[in-house]
Amino acid sequence: MTKPRPPFDVKALADSVRGGDRRALARAVTLVESMRPADREQAEALLTGLLPHTGSAMRIGISGAPGVGKSTFIEAFGAHLTGQGRTLAVLAVDPSSRRSGGSILGDKTRMENLARNPAAFIRPSPAGASLGGVARRTRESILLAEAAGFDVVLVETVGIGQSETAVSEMVDIFVLLIGPGGGDELQGIKRGVMELADIVLVTKADGELKQAAARAAADYGHALHLMRPKYAGVAAGVKQVSALEGRGIVEAWTAIGQFHRALAQSGQLEKLRRNQLKRWFWNEVQAVLEEEISTDARIAAEARKIEADIAAGRALPNAAARRLIRHFRAS
Amino acid sequence: MTKPRPPFDVKALADSVRGGDRRALARAVTLVESMRPADREQAEALLTGLLPHTGSAMRIGISGAPGVGKSTFIEAFGAHLTGQGRTLAVLAVDPSSRRSGGSILGDKTRMENLARNPAAFIRPSPAGASLGGVARRTRESILLAEAAGFDVVLVETVGIGQSETAVSEMVDIFVLLIGPGGGDELQGIKRGVMELADIVLVTKADGELKQAAARAAADYGHALHLMRPKYAGVAAGVKQVSALEGRGIVEAWTAIGQFHRALAQSGQLEKLRRNQLKRWFWNEVQAVLEEEISTDARIAAEARKIEADIAAGRALPNAAARRLIRHFRAS
Repeated sequence: MTKPRPPFDVKALADSVRGGDRRALARAVTLVESMRPADREQAEALLTGLLPHTGSAMRIGISGAPGVGKSTFIEAFGAHLTGQGRTLAVLAVDPSSRRSGGSILGDKTRMENLARNPAAFIRPSPAGASLGGVARRTRESILLAEAAGFDVVLVETVGIGQSETAVSEMVDIFVLLIGPGGGDELQGIKRGVMELADIVLVTKADGELKQAAARAAADYGHALHLMRPKYAGVAAGVKQVSALEGRGIVEAWTAIGQFHRALAQSGQLEKLRRNQLKRWFWNEVQAVLEEEISTDARIAAEARKIEADIAAGRALPNAAARRLIRHFRAS
Repeated sequence: MTKPRPPFDVKALADSVRGGDRRALARAVTLVESMRPADREQAEALLTGLLPHTGSAMRIGISGAPGVGKSTFIEAFGAHLTGQGRTLAVLAVDPSSRRSGGSILGDKTRMENLARNPAAFIRPSPAGASLGGVARRTRESILLAEAAGFDVVLVETVGIGQSETAVSEMVDIFVLLIGPGGGDELQGIKRGVMELADIVLVTKADGELKQAAARAAADYGHALHLMRPKYAGVAAGVKQVSALEGRGIVEAWTAIGQFHRALAQSGQLEKLRRNQLKRWFWNEVQAVLEEEISTDARIAAEARKIEADIAAGRALPNAAARRLIRHFRAS
């Protein structure tokens, strides 16, 4: 039972967000994450009002299997960015947090320094939501962070499950962190994730793992080379980083920045974002359809009946689909 | 311009199909492949009438990059099955056939013997169709082949693009053919396909490639071992085949049969097919929705307007999605 909140003054909240007020931003994200219909209406009013002020940030997706050193890297990466006078928002996508019980960023002490850094904003993944729900709210949180003036939005996800694809569809550039263990490390990562990567960072390139990291970097470089490139004239790359020794962080940021500039200057970034918006829209159309079908008692019952007919071999899926849509339009 | 056909007597056609009349089956598949609304209605009447007589075949998906020796294998595999008194239908999924100009099975001489074999039925992929369209019609063709009493339905696809996922969602068991070249061979295969494989067959395990094939088989066995299994208690496997020398064909069929039996006896086959039907249904719901949106001039115009608003940052995708669905239901 969520305790009722006083209604927001949407306009005032929008202004505070645009003013860069971090508590207002946190409040706006909470509103966007709320599943209460009344909150939803306000959230969309807020977002629609802020839309003209979005799109300015560099949107970076970052993924890696548990234990690869993601938090440590983000800490060092964030320190470098903010040290350069940039502002950074870190959002997390972790649909598994519902099952695993704790959001991957739930414990802010995971990134102690960044959490205390006034130039950074860290937001844990909303718990108890489906991937679709998390993805929608993360997309909207990116927009909020942009409206609040953040230069870089980092969307973090765990290197398992379907969340990488969802994240890759909401960011400009997808960074994959892999440990120095070479091929074996990839076993911890769901197949198909590698092909999403624009930049691969081999972590823990220090101490006795230095040689292994160098070999792994060469291997992944070779693998990326063999994959058909995602973009014309913009090649994926591999770097080694040691968050521990603070080495490679600058190079990683440089590689990410160069990749992003190349996308922007070739017009491919605009195209990418336009397509992402279009896909988002049609995903939402599907989501709204399923939502309205499930919430309309009569249609929901019809859908269940149809599913049973199909399972029993009494109905053909496509004929049944038209039947359901007919009911849907008629009701 | 397709020349008009006389209307079918659906009942009579259904009876002929059930009687195993191959020309009737070919005619039924043509009806199912037709995009003319009148044909579509008859096709669904035909299929609905035949539904109670479907589900009996072993549904095998088979994929492999061009040049891996798919046709040669299917020839030998088909000869073995029919030699055992089994009947075999081979269907092809190749959405690229539209672009490449020729269907992968368009030239039946590709499988000369099987094409002449009275116990086999070979059907090229319908040209000029989208993957969605091809997938739907292939699903329906599987049902027709089952109603016609075929023991095994082989759904062939090229080892590139998205078609493997589509095929894996309509068959009981997915067989991946890979050449003896080891890792390099995988480069010809879209990433993510490997994880669909229930059985991997390393081809051309003969002559001077024998050693390489053995090494490749060991590698893939190791790779499969590292992947989380698709089914409880049913492990994927790797075999070597030489269609040229006719070696490994029996072992391949044995492995496929054992895998299929294990799925069936553990109740996982029934679950798999039930889920496939459910997914098929919801894919169709989505397809019908998009179809009706695109064919209703007013809604289509609204959709284009909304897409433009979103691209221009004037509308939020999920609010816009509800707007479109509202129009859709109201119209």
